[in-house]
Amino acid sequence: MNKAKKIPASPQSFSPHEVRISGGFWKKKMDVNRRETLPIVFQRCEETGRIDALRQTWKPGQPNQPHIFWDSDVAKLVEACSYSLAAHPDPALEAKVDEVVAWFASAQQPDGYLNSHYTTVEPRNRWTNLRDNHELYCAGHIIEAAVAHFQSTGKTTFLDVACRYADYIATVFGRGEGQRRGYPGHEEIELALVRLHSATGQSRYLDLAEYFIDERGQHPHYFDQEAIARGEDPKNYWLKTYEHSQSHIPVRDQKKPVGHAVRATYLYTGMAAVAGATGDTSLLQACKRLWKVLTSTQMHVSAGIGQIARNEGFTADYDLPNESAYLETCAAIGMAFWGHRMLDWQPDSTYSDVVEQALYNGTISGVSVDGRRFFYGNPLAAHPGFDGNGNFVKEGYHYRRQEWFGCSCCPTNIARFIANVPSFLYTSRGDELAVHQYAESVSMLKVSGQSVRVVQKTNYPWEGEIALEIAPEKTAVWCLAIRIPGWCKSAVVKVNGRKIKLAAALSKGYARIQREWRAGDVVTLSLSMTVDRVEAHPAVRQNAGRIALRRGPVVYCIESVDNGADLNGIALLPDPAFEVTFGKGRILGGVPVIRAKAVRTKPQGRKDPLYGDFGAWPRTACTVTAIPYFLWANRKPGEMLVWIRQINS
Amino acid sequence: MNKAKKIPASPQSFSPHEVRISGGFWKKKMDVNRRETLPIVFQRCEETGRIDALRQTWKPGQPNQPHIFWDSDVAKLVEACSYSLAAHPDPALEAKVDEVVAWFASAQQPDGYLNSHYTTVEPRNRWTNLRDNHELYCAGHIIEAAVAHFQSTGKTTFLDVACRYADYIATVFGRGEGQRRGYPGHEEIELALVRLHSATGQSRYLDLAEYFIDERGQHPHYFDQEAIARGEDPKNYWLKTYEHSQSHIPVRDQKKPVGHAVRATYLYTGMAAVAGATGDTSLLQACKRLWKVLTSTQMHVSAGIGQIARNEGFTADYDLPNESAYLETCAAIGMAFWGHRMLDWQPDSTYSDVVEQALYNGTISGVSVDGRRFFYGNPLAAHPGFDGNGNFVKEGYHYRRQEWFGCSCCPTNIARFIANVPSFLYTSRGDELAVHQYAESVSMLKVSGQSVRVVQKTNYPWEGEIALEIAPEKTAVWCLAIRIPGWCKSAVVKVNGRKIKLAAALSKGYARIQREWRAGDVVTLSLSMTVDRVEAHPAVRQNAGRIALRRGPVVYCIESVDNGADLNGIALLPDPAFEVTFGKGRILGGVPVIRAKAVRTKPQGRKDPLYGDFGAWPRTACTVTAIPYFLWANRKPGEMLVWIRQINS
Repeated sequence: MNKAKKIPASPQSFSPHEVRISGGFWKKKMDVNRRETLPIVFQRCEETGRIDALRQTWKPGQPNQPHIFWDSDVAKLVEACSYSLAAHPDPALEAKVDEVVAWFASAQQPDGYLNSHYTTVEPRNRWTNLRDNHELYCAGHIIEAAVAHFQSTGKTTFLDVACRYADYIATVFGRGEGQRRGYPGHEEIELALVRLHSATGQSRYLDLAEYFIDERGQHPHYFDQEAIARGEDPKNYWLKTYEHSQSHIPVRDQKKPVGHAVRATYLYTGMAAVAGATGDTSLLQACKRLWKVLTSTQMHVSAGIGQIARNEGFTADYDLPNESAYLETCAAIGMAFWGHRMLDWQPDSTYSDVVEQALYNGTISGVSVDGRRFFYGNPLAAHPGFDGNGNFVKEGYHYRRQEWFGCSCCPTNIARFIANVPSFLYTSRGDELAVHQYAESVSMLKVSGQSVRVVQKTNYPWEGEIALEIAPEKTAVWCLAIRIPGWCKSAVVKVNGRKIKLAAALSKGYARIQREWRAGDVVTLSLSMTVDRVEAHPAVRQNAGRIALRRGPVVYCIESVDNGADLNGIALLPDPAFEVTFGKGRILGGVPVIRAKAVRTKPQGRKDPLYGDFGAWPRTACTVTAIPYFLWANRKPGEMLVWIRQINS
Repeated sequence: MNKAKKIPASPQSFSPHEVRISGGFWKKKMDVNRRETLPIVFQRCEETGRIDALRQTWKPGQPNQPHIFWDSDVAKLVEACSYSLAAHPDPALEAKVDEVVAWFASAQQPDGYLNSHYTTVEPRNRWTNLRDNHELYCAGHIIEAAVAHFQSTGKTTFLDVACRYADYIATVFGRGEGQRRGYPGHEEIELALVRLHSATGQSRYLDLAEYFIDERGQHPHYFDQEAIARGEDPKNYWLKTYEHSQSHIPVRDQKKPVGHAVRATYLYTGMAAVAGATGDTSLLQACKRLWKVLTSTQMHVSAGIGQIARNEGFTADYDLPNESAYLETCAAIGMAFWGHRMLDWQPDSTYSDVVEQALYNGTISGVSVDGRRFFYGNPLAAHPGFDGNGNFVKEGYHYRRQEWFGCSCCPTNIARFIANVPSFLYTSRGDELAVHQYAESVSMLKVSGQSVRVVQKTNYPWEGEIALEIAPEKTAVWCLAIRIPGWCKSAVVKVNGRKIKLAAALSKGYARIQREWRAGDVVTLSLSMTVDRVEAHPAVRQNAGRIALRRGPVVYCIESVDNGADLNGIALLPDPAFEVTFGKGRILGGVPVIRAKAVRTKPQGRKDPLYGDFGAWPRTACTVTAIPYFLWANRKPGEMLVWIRQINS
């Protein structure tokens, strides 16, 4: 198979080094991330022994035994700090990061192997349990971190470590004689290897990524053979099905998302990345099909996925529980990764709309306003006494963000995600520059090999006006593709003040403006910002008779702190007469708040009978106050509800 | 303390020997129970080794190791058969039962001890783990079975065994020197001992019941001491809290139901029985308080209790999940037991209304129409792919009744419950005869020491006309108290054709008719049978905007087999124009079916997007068909829903 034949014009993404967020929504988030979250995450990694583990001093019997996940947390910390350094140089932080990088280097074995758990805890068991033990997953995170460190600091110290590790892995795994035909039980390394390929230009890393993708789910099944080699009966696999790791069948045969949601999105991101880099259309088709099925049957309105805690993953089509929904922060992040990677092929709002949905809802709900506490699961309803999975804990309990977790993938993931938000704004390919996401920013991009300075001025997502100042190095003809969000009922695009005919310019949700661009050109985009009532497909039993409020890309919720108890007793009027107020009462720093007309069953004492005749409890008029969903649980604890009842529905 | 002082006129219950169901609803149920369920349950007890276990031949290493629950299943089988024999003599069955009784007798140890698990599997561990191991629970069931066997057959063979066992237990447990101050981890023996006291007149059995009730939850805690004696740390108790067995505090201090639902109702039944027999008002007050809290905050509309599978028990006030509701058959049976025992004190429809609610809903839903399959849990909604606890299993799965269970308490319990339904109809106390439940029947009762023949003619619960023919042995003045069901909007009571003034006669939900009764007197009761829309308390978040249909005491549900998929897409019209049809289309043998006007989101293909604007899916008018809830899952599998959405609510 001639790889060269398949490879189309290579897509280009941009890093925080090239895209600088200069104000607005994301500047605030990134500042909090830098000032609060990164130091906390750094500190937790130190306190819990995660960084010490790389020092290789742990001995059996000592506390803080290095865990199989730990390297991934430290790697994500380095990755997050690297993005932050690109946007906001900080010599002290850089020195701390370089010290950690040095520990990674010191932990690397002479043959290139690098895993603090295996080298200290079970040195003889390297590569004996890919199914469960996250060795290749940790390797993937080390590679991603190294690429970020290189791109942000220009230093190759960590990149060299990662390349040596990847080169070593390529000797262990593959179809050659004496090689293991294995692949990770938790995907991640595939997408990381494509990034390593982009950063180094070395096709062997893309080849290895492709091998891991292609080998997955082949028969005889590697996890069976591996279990037998460990002296175990594969039938006794504790999770019963390889669907958990999407390795039940080869990836191109997979018709619907199954198993663990983070694993799934990381695999699909890897598949999309390989497809984008190699031009493999069979892989692209598999991705498109999986995307379609997932987003049209198993994705919550927050872009959260993985409905239940039991498998941290998928259940049935149209099963979208609210109070018991799992929706791991990492899984929503995975959706953003995957959707963005699908844009390598061409701009298509099928994907970038969902990236936006994840950006403003199911990802950032995972961190508190102050940047110091984290959600693992992000349910769409909460009730006092019950945990985030809908299980009763005890009276007086409230599901709240926590400082850290035993398995603490989410805090480090949200830290690197927010620090890397700039990378979601643009891609370019050939003579086309696509604007996927809107944020106040100053960027130096490449189109057709030449530099273009793009400045975005906007208060998005709170307001719908966006001005794009385009300043190419030199005047040239190319295409600017601007996403018109799917939620928008009315959009106006002007080039240097002149309205363009949007219907004619639209292709796959993007206004494509092909013209000679010159310095000083200004494109403006006006997106009507209405409060929308979102209704779920009739097969979603949990949302029947209910609507979700969404303004722009931001999904709203109601909380007891604004609306009292018994939120399910509230029903919006047929005309809720929405009123949006900015800064009024300064709720959560003055974010836009939605007020709506509703009725509710009269707040009751608890002495009424449990059952009455229809109408036994009188309804009274009320006004409800809704706040952005991602901001819930930042004030007094109580109930929370995204899907609100609607009269006449 | 002088016991004699506390004891009021003793309440009298009646057994199937005295109350004979002669037709109608319960005759059908009891016939199926006798013809189908009893032989099946008998066979399963034989096949699984439960009866063999009593033969004491099991040796270590052999299959079918006698389990700690097993004796209770066989005892409930004997109890069920005994009730059946009272109503329907059957020499062949009687011989089989007597053989099992003989095996019980043969398994009894010289000192009176009787437990097939302990004597064969761990003979040295008798009474070492009351907390977990059900020894006294099994003893209770043996006692109940023996009383039933005695009352139905007149034979004392089993009663003698039970008395010897109870006498032995009274030597082991108590406050005397050298006695253990223990009590059961799973309550049951308390209520059984009160029955043994009634059957034998021996006050020592009542004393022992009282001891178990009074000792429960005292400190130092017996289960702590017992764990220490086993060499365990009580802190390591796997269930963490003695709330599970309602032994966290003394019973009179218990303010709300906690823990395992079956344990709870069996305890409360025992407390009510002791209170009724001794006149202990402090115990009665505790029962009343617990009843009030439970029925006004944690009881489903089916009278099912125990909201979740995890502890098979209680959660939080007003937490009434539907699809994931546990509602074990045994727990609804326990509610009926408890409610009926509360009537020992005086007729009060607070209790008998709930007994009726259990009789026609949450108990008999536990067995299929053909009597051959059983539910353990009885959720109030079902969705394909999900089990009875709301957990996703797999596509194509349907939660259905099963032939048997590993822990198979429910099949034997529903068998004895249905066979003993006659006992719920009447109680008498002093010069008052109370009619609690309505069923076509012929009974020979006692009031003020004289016999009264009472014949009920009715097609209840399908129709609301009931005629009671009263034929006392000799003319005398006494009070007939007739329950006017709480669900009934309009009732007319006539004595010999003359309407009585109901408002004046009503006391605690009963029409009290004090007069000179003579043979030939006829009391008629006309209960208006409307379709009621039941609304739950506004704090029940799961039922917001929904109503349950109830006709008479029977709660209805809708199923896919009649109404297609996506039942939650259906919303009843503000005026549903209910139509009740009998036998039309012969659904499930011609039971009354409710038809109602509704709208539903237009049945969709699965290709629509997951989210749309409000109104994206058009509504169309439709007629829904509802069947009695207890009959669900007897036809083609599919969705089921009790709480239906209601427009304008």
